[in-house]
Amino acid sequence: MSSEDLFIFSGWSNEPLAQRICDYLGVSLRPTQTKRFSHGSLRVQLGESVRNKDVYIVQSLTDPVHRHLMQMLMMLDIARHGDAARVTAVIPYYVYGRADKKDAPRISIAAKLLAQLIETAGADRVIALTLHSAQTHGFFDVPLDHLTSLRVLVDYFKQQDLRDTVVVSPDVGYAKQATKLAGALGVPLAIGSKVRLDDKRVEIKAVLGAGSYVPKRAIVIDDEIATGGTMVEIVKAMKKEGTEEFSLACTHGLFTDNAVDALNGIECVNEIVCTDSVYAPDAVEGIHKLHVQSVASVIGDAILCNHEGRSVGELFTFWEEGFPADSSLG
Amino acid sequence: MSSEDLFIFSGWSNEPLAQRICDYLGVSLRPTQTKRFSHGSLRVQLGESVRNKDVYIVQSLTDPVHRHLMQMLMMLDIARHGDAARVTAVIPYYVYGRADKKDAPRISIAAKLLAQLIETAGADRVIALTLHSAQTHGFFDVPLDHLTSLRVLVDYFKQQDLRDTVVVSPDVGYAKQATKLAGALGVPLAIGSKVRLDDKRVEIKAVLGAGSYVPKRAIVIDDEIATGGTMVEIVKAMKKEGTEEFSLACTHGLFTDNAVDALNGIECVNEIVCTDSVYAPDAVEGIHKLHVQSVASVIGDAILCNHEGRSVGELFTFWEEGFPADSSLG
Amino acid sequence: MSSEDLFIFSGWSNEPLAQRICDYLGVSLRPTQTKRFSHGSLRVQLGESVRNKDVYIVQSLTDPVHRHLMQMLMMLDIARHGDAARVTAVIPYYVYGRADKKDAPRISIAAKLLAQLIETAGADRVIALTLHSAQTHGFFDVPLDHLTSLRVLVDYFKQQDLRDTVVVSPDVGYAKQATKLAGALGVPLAIGSKVRLDDKRVEIKAVLGAGSYVPKRAIVIDDEIATGGTMVEIVKAMKKEGTEEFSLACTHGLFTDNAVDALNGIECVNEIVCTDSVYAPDAVEGIHKLHVQSVASVIGDAILCNHEGRSVGELFTFWEEGFPADSSLG
Amino acid sequence: MSSEDLFIFSGWSNEPLAQRICDYLGVSLRPTQTKRFSHGSLRVQLGESVRNKDVYIVQSLTDPVHRHLMQMLMMLDIARHGDAARVTAVIPYYVYGRADKKDAPRISIAAKLLAQLIETAGADRVIALTLHSAQTHGFFDVPLDHLTSLRVLVDYFKQQDLRDTVVVSPDVGYAKQATKLAGALGVPLAIGSKVRLDDKRVEIKAVLGAGSYVPKRAIVIDDEIATGGTMVEIVKAMKKEGTEEFSLACTHGLFTDNAVDALNGIECVNEIVCTDSVYAPDAVEGIHKLHVQSVASVIGDAILCNHEGRSVGELFTFWEEGFPADSSLG
Amino acid sequence: MSSEDLFIFSGWSNEPLAQRICDYLGVSLRPTQTKRFSHGSLRVQLGESVRNKDVYIVQSLTDPVHRHLMQMLMMLDIARHGDAARVTAVIPYYVYGRADKKDAPRISIAAKLLAQLIETAGADRVIALTLHSAQTHGFFDVPLDHLTSLRVLVDYFKQQDLRDTVVVSPDVGYAKQATKLAGALGVPLAIGSKVRLDDKRVEIKAVLGAGSYVPKRAIVIDDEIATGGTMVEIVKAMKKEGTEEFSLACTHGLFTDNAVDALNGIECVNEIVCTDSVYAPDAVEGIHKLHVQSVASVIGDAILCNHEGRSVGELFTFWEEGFPADSSLG
Amino acid sequence: MSSEDLFIFSGWSNEPLAQRICDYLGVSLRPTQTKRFSHGSLRVQLGESVRNKDVYIVQSLTDPVHRHLMQMLMMLDIARHGDAARVTAVIPYYVYGRADKKDAPRISIAAKLLAQLIETAGADRVIALTLHSAQTHGFFDVPLDHLTSLRVLVDYFKQQDLRDTVVVSPDVGYAKQATKLAGALGVPLAIGSKVRLDDKRVEIKAVLGAGSYVPKRAIVIDDEIATGGTMVEIVKAMKKEGTEEFSLACTHGLFTDNAVDALNGIECVNEIVCTDSVYAPDAVEGIHKLHVQSVASVIGDAILCNHEGRSVGELFTFWEEGFPADSSLG
Repeated sequence: MSSEDLFIFSGWSNEPLAQRICDYLGVSLRPTQTKRFSHGSLRVQLGESVRNKDVYIVQSLTDPVHRHLMQMLMMLDIARHGDAARVTAVIPYYVYGRADKKDAPRISIAAKLLAQLIETAGADRVIALTLHSAQTHGFFDVPLDHLTSLRVLVDYFKQQDLRDTVVVSPDVGYAKQATKLAGALGVPLAIGSKVRLDDKRVEIKAVLGAGSYVPKRAIVIDDEIATGGTMVEIVKAMKKEGTEEFSLACTHGLFTDNAVDALNGIECVNEIVCTDSVYAPDAVEGIHKLHVQSVASVIGDAILCNHEGRSVGELFTFWEEGFPADSSLG
Repeated sequence: MSSEDLFIFSGWSNEPLAQRICDYLGVSLRPTQTKRFSHGSLRVQLGESVRNKDVYIVQSLTDPVHRHLMQMLMMLDIARHGDAARVTAVIPYYVYGRADKKDAPRISIAAKLLAQLIETAGADRVIALTLHSAQTHGFFDVPLDHLTSLRVLVDYFKQQDLRDTVVVSPDVGYAKQATKLAGALGVPLAIGSKVRLDDKRVEIKAVLGAGSYVPKRAIVIDDEIATGGTMVEIVKAMKKEGTEEFSLACTHGLFTDNAVDALNGIECVNEIVCTDSVYAPDAVEGIHKLHVQSVASVIGDAILCNHEGRSVGELFTFWEEGFPADSSLG
Repeated sequence: MSSEDLFIFSGWSNEPLAQRICDYLGVSLRPTQTKRFSHGSLRVQLGESVRNKDVYIVQSLTDPVHRHLMQMLMMLDIARHGDAARVTAVIPYYVYGRADKKDAPRISIAAKLLAQLIETAGADRVIALTLHSAQTHGFFDVPLDHLTSLRVLVDYFKQQDLRDTVVVSPDVGYAKQATKLAGALGVPLAIGSKVRLDDKRVEIKAVLGAGSYVPKRAIVIDDEIATGGTMVEIVKAMKKEGTEEFSLACTHGLFTDNAVDALNGIECVNEIVCTDSVYAPDAVEGIHKLHVQSVASVIGDAILCNHEGRSVGELFTFWEEGFPADSSLG
Repeated sequence: MSSEDLFIFSGWSNEPLAQRICDYLGVSLRPTQTKRFSHGSLRVQLGESVRNKDVYIVQSLTDPVHRHLMQMLMMLDIARHGDAARVTAVIPYYVYGRADKKDAPRISIAAKLLAQLIETAGADRVIALTLHSAQTHGFFDVPLDHLTSLRVLVDYFKQQDLRDTVVVSPDVGYAKQATKLAGALGVPLAIGSKVRLDDKRVEIKAVLGAGSYVPKRAIVIDDEIATGGTMVEIVKAMKKEGTEEFSLACTHGLFTDNAVDALNGIECVNEIVCTDSVYAPDAVEGIHKLHVQSVASVIGDAILCNHEGRSVGELFTFWEEGFPADSSLG
Repeated sequence: MSSEDLFIFSGWSNEPLAQRICDYLGVSLRPTQTKRFSHGSLRVQLGESVRNKDVYIVQSLTDPVHRHLMQMLMMLDIARHGDAARVTAVIPYYVYGRADKKDAPRISIAAKLLAQLIETAGADRVIALTLHSAQTHGFFDVPLDHLTSLRVLVDYFKQQDLRDTVVVSPDVGYAKQATKLAGALGVPLAIGSKVRLDDKRVEIKAVLGAGSYVPKRAIVIDDEIATGGTMVEIVKAMKKEGTEEFSLACTHGLFTDNAVDALNGIECVNEIVCTDSVYAPDAVEGIHKLHVQSVASVIGDAILCNHEGRSVGELFTFWEEGFPADSSLG
Repeated sequence: MSSEDLFIFSGWSNEPLAQRICDYLGVSLRPTQTKRFSHGSLRVQLGESVRNKDVYIVQSLTDPVHRHLMQMLMMLDIARHGDAARVTAVIPYYVYGRADKKDAPRISIAAKLLAQLIETAGADRVIALTLHSAQTHGFFDVPLDHLTSLRVLVDYFKQQDLRDTVVVSPDVGYAKQATKLAGALGVPLAIGSKVRLDDKRVEIKAVLGAGSYVPKRAIVIDDEIATGGTMVEIVKAMKKEGTEEFSLACTHGLFTDNAVDALNGIECVNEIVCTDSVYAPDAVEGIHKLHVQSVASVIGDAILCNHEGRSVGELFTFWEEGFPADSSLG
């Protein structure tokens, strides 16, 4: 398949990123017309024939989450029935990623349901970025390339003086991923023991670390920052113990509610780092010290490898050091 | 299955109708907790175990269309994985009903896509009311009971003096359904020849009727009223020809945009009749002469027949007079 | 894929059309051997290996309807299991098209069932011509190209003097399609109000037109002509009103029972126009003034676009004037 | 489920057998209306609501094979969409049973295709009688009860003097089944070595038996008799060797072409025995010495066991003596 | 469904547990005959008709893993085709649970593949116990009851003096589950930072705890113990820090290779606690201080709730305190 | 697709054959790493990226049958999720081939179940060699190339003096295949009437032949030889009748239990002929007069035809003489 057959379309959620991916690849973003009727339904039309093309639909599932979802599903459906050679959903932010298990009776494992809806609408393949849990991969019956943004975060922090620094996971549940960052940066790991008081409030009961060592600086890493409440609490808990400086990092900067104020209100923060997987212009403008790293090249490389039938594995090589740790038995 | 096993849950879109259906059936509406997170995703929990129950999920797909859709899909998914004996989606208003064919290249037959999503989420069966086209039935692979609200409309108009009255379909595409109402009321039919100027404006180029006869009164019937623009135009066109009085009727009173003002602004309107398939409290309060007829009994009867394994056919007997007209050949 | 990989096979129903398509495309019709055993079953063998080929199976589902259906299903099955690269069912006449809704209890939406059987047998795609309703498209889960024969009908009538002429749909249910022909020819529309008396007899109760205008000539258009009874009645009804000349047009000339005599018996008929979607040699010989327009180029173009991965949309451009009318809301 | 919920419908192919099954079970045969339109399509309507019923559709797939097939598929489709509790296809004669393997390139394993069509149309289960090969069972993804008619044949021949008698399979391919009959009757087996000269003519090159022993009488057994040609040849071959008397037996008496004359023309035939799995009134009247044994009780028992959830196994106990022979290894 | 319809069958892997479940429920274990041929294939026969029964197939996927898997798949297949009312796979030990993500290129998410095989073979539902990750639930398309054995572990340790005790997860990846045990016992948590040196050897680089606190005693909890190597290392690491006593606990006591010796060789171990989810008679005999807690009642209750259509939720109530922690956002 | 895209991987069961196939095709066998954990599960990793490749997974399903099966399923799963262009399972020995029918109640048609598992794991196509029954083909929903090894057997025996020789099928059930060999060699056929005494012992009650003729030499043909017991018995039975010399032939030389001794113990055996579809080094070394014919070229040719999209039919032409015999009616 020649590069003329590589067609990228974008939904409404994050057109700037889609454009950046196209710029990186040197192709034009294909036009899509979407109209919203007065009663709320959408009418989507792909602007060019996709017959026999290798089609990529880029959509971040950000707020309004479900409208963006339906727009993407319709775009997939059109491409399939328009007889595209192959249809790939490119989802920089996969909403419902945390709904990946049944931790209460009579709830939905919505991350699985979402995967089924995407397949039902016609995706032959999916490209996703930093899913909340690695297991979400297994919810898909179609091939999925699970890209990681940690490479861009490592590149960012590698340039800094990392003496007397720890990587902190605010929560036990995300500690596995933080381990990888700590390993890549060559610094120790600490883990927050988060307890949720109610929907809006969390408390960090303790920060588990190696004995009595108190680091001077902490890089707090999470997959996403929404209201910023967790970040506020982990900083508070560690400052009390003696840590003096903080870098806050995440892949998906959602910055919902009054996150701008909450994050600006934390003292001792050197920087806040996120990627452009979510389009959040208000946060970009409002949050001091926010550094947005683009994942356009990460996603662009994956699209190109897919299109040309080359291995995507090399995109992940950073994280494959030796035998994978936790698939083994003890 | 005893009536103790009949469990009705409702989404957010039209709880008053769900409650009315429960009241009609003498059962309690089972609780559902739905929470919306700051970044837009939902967390839905059915309030009671559905194991081995006959579950009905009531949701009108009204604005915000896609949030209501996802809420319903999650409720279906929960019921399925909660091992319900049978899960039925009850959809008084089926959005995307008009997207039932490919009338332009590279668009989605969204009414079909929607059916597939609903089945993917776990519906064993569907109950719907007055779909835009009868063919939409065929988009479903699971059994569907396509209920009609025309019975309540006929009941309403039968009590009036129908001399010198015609039933008018504002558009050729909906004329088949208008034929049924005309037949049931025993009055002639007229058909508007609608042309769409742009997204917001339509023009009625002509009203096709039987020769030179000009009726004194017209009952204009459509499946739904959104902005009211079509109603405004058909009345304008017929008044020019000499018709003096108008009744406007539909099943689904969406009343979007400034429909309240537009409808109140039409002169010579005796009444506007719709059902409670859509929950529209502003319209109910704002539109003069609005008569809302409840479909709770129509839907309730269908649920009961389903639950008890009795024929639903009798609910449609009104419309089955002799050999079905257009399945035959000429 | 080169044109050497384009393989067209034909069932028994309409080999002359299949040959015409091949001639139009400059390829040879590939051989098929079918044997019918004494107890009625078939043994079908494709005459050439289809491994990695782009295969098209041409079959009109005409009488004997079900034998032709099974022959096509077996051909699809063979091509699939013979590891064809892609298998397309080309169905110039899609029987059961009128069974597209449930207009009586306990009947089958056979147009949907048929779509499922065709997909089960292995069709990756379908090409169909002038389906009874546009919604039938949505019955298919595989891509379908719904071609229209109206282009050839418009070409035919455009060459005539169309003054004082109307296009007439004999039935409200088919009026939407007639609207398109009227629009393309730039003449007014009239609609017959057909009532079915019994299986064999229909009555046209009225012809709805624009006020008191009586055209001199009518072009009556339907999707198919079977016994010709409807045509007889609509002519009778309009002659009574004063129309003097008639052209009868359809896509699918089935001409069943004594259609030849019935149609020859109508006076004031200028011409009867149909396509070669149905192979009906007796009618061609017997019906006076019958003009058969070939759809070989329409289907051939669609096959070629499919084979070469080019947009089929341009084959429909005739009918896409501006925003599609009835997918919008009023 | 009570017996009130047991609903049996019949297609056109073998209503007498369906009626006999109903009589055996003491239930009434439910009405079905089928109409055939002038262009060949069918309109089928089940005469009673099947909601929550245990539905059995009885149809022998005899000539016109494909019309009967489509009628059955539509009946299954109606029952499924009519929300039957369970839908069982009862197929006394399964056509295409011999198309169970790919013995030439580019042909269809039509027995498998047929199974897929039946499942696509909505059969939850199937009851079949004496399939050509036992492996056909594996073509079905739904439960299948493969009934045998050998019990009635054994009952028939057990009453005779079986001294100096062999059971003969006219062909190596069917010898396994003949072995069972021979075993049950306690007589030796012989096997014809059939070669097919052309479509209509076969030749029995040799009859393989135990050494030089020539039996006085042969019971020739096959699964079906169509034109009777094979029977004519096997008798001819064995008479030449010295056998004097013949009984011809089969399950499915199709008796096609001039089978009546061919069979009447064989001398030395004591009797011809078949079942009523196929409705063939002309043969019954025309063939001398024809003894038709009814399978109504065999099928009726299977329906009853299914309906009441009892084991069907006992219906086959006759043939289960010890460890099954050919599933073991040597 | 009455309890007469509850049929439990067992594969070869853990018949003692299956018998204990039956004893707990007061039903008899139904017979299964399995034969292994000389070339390795199996022949499985269920000993009783399952028509219309509620069937449970109990199998722990222990070594020989794949033979036990195939035996279970065949039992499921038989039950499905034997027309069971419902077929549930009961899997006390789900092998391949750790293969739940793609942590290296070109490997299989075998936990997902396994789920698909089980569904393909006919399981309508699954009951599993303490899966390695909660997300594995989402790999199933059929309802799954994910039971926890933590209840029995909590019951065990609750009776002890828990002062100056911590719960330890040997690995960050399993820390979430350990958090639950710590919470239930009301003691602090510590987390081992495990690094895998090679296939057989791991190293605990650090034990993350709350500041400088060194507990006197540790309860080390993991989902399974295979060779025991991890346990050896975590004890070694903590002893070096000053912890004096250890309890080792897991759900699945696989005890492979020389686990018996390895575990017996650890000093300072008070007890080793596991359940009977795995049948390991050698370990039971060989490991000193081994306490096996039965999960027969946990599984038995789940089966009963399923059979009687009652909520299984109550079986998990222990772990549902308030809003689930990590599905929320921060 | 160029030959660079042809990737062949091998499981553990028969790497020598896989290597021979690669040598024949002039391609390299791609590396696969498989590790077996202490508790029995596997970890499989394909050694090269398969994105967009035409992948063939070669695995003979020999003992340990189920481990080899799972290894193959995981390899298929990896290739599918690794986005291979096409994945073909190449199965020289298909275990469970004899479990192709339900010859006892409540057993599994495991040959069908196996086909479903293979498809579930991601095989787009299958290549198999000499299945026990031709009908097994129909168990697959994906294209299958059923190769025959009879060509190599015919080549072998054609070079011998075949006067006064018969081909013998030890069992009626396999006689159809033996007929083909007899026909190809131009010698008569004889059929053993095998009765199974118990699991390990069979008895040949009679050898059916043409009258009183006693051949000097017999070529005994079966699809597989396991313990050799059947061969021992058929030789014994025929020697008693006067036959003096024997050649024993099969496709799949499993040689289980003490087959080596059993076969060496038969006198009057000229040769034992099998293929390398099964890797059995002990037998090759131990059995006197064993001649192993390679099927590498047969399988290699099929792979190449598949890869290049050429007809595989020619690989079978040997066996297609005229109209297939037993698909016709008599």
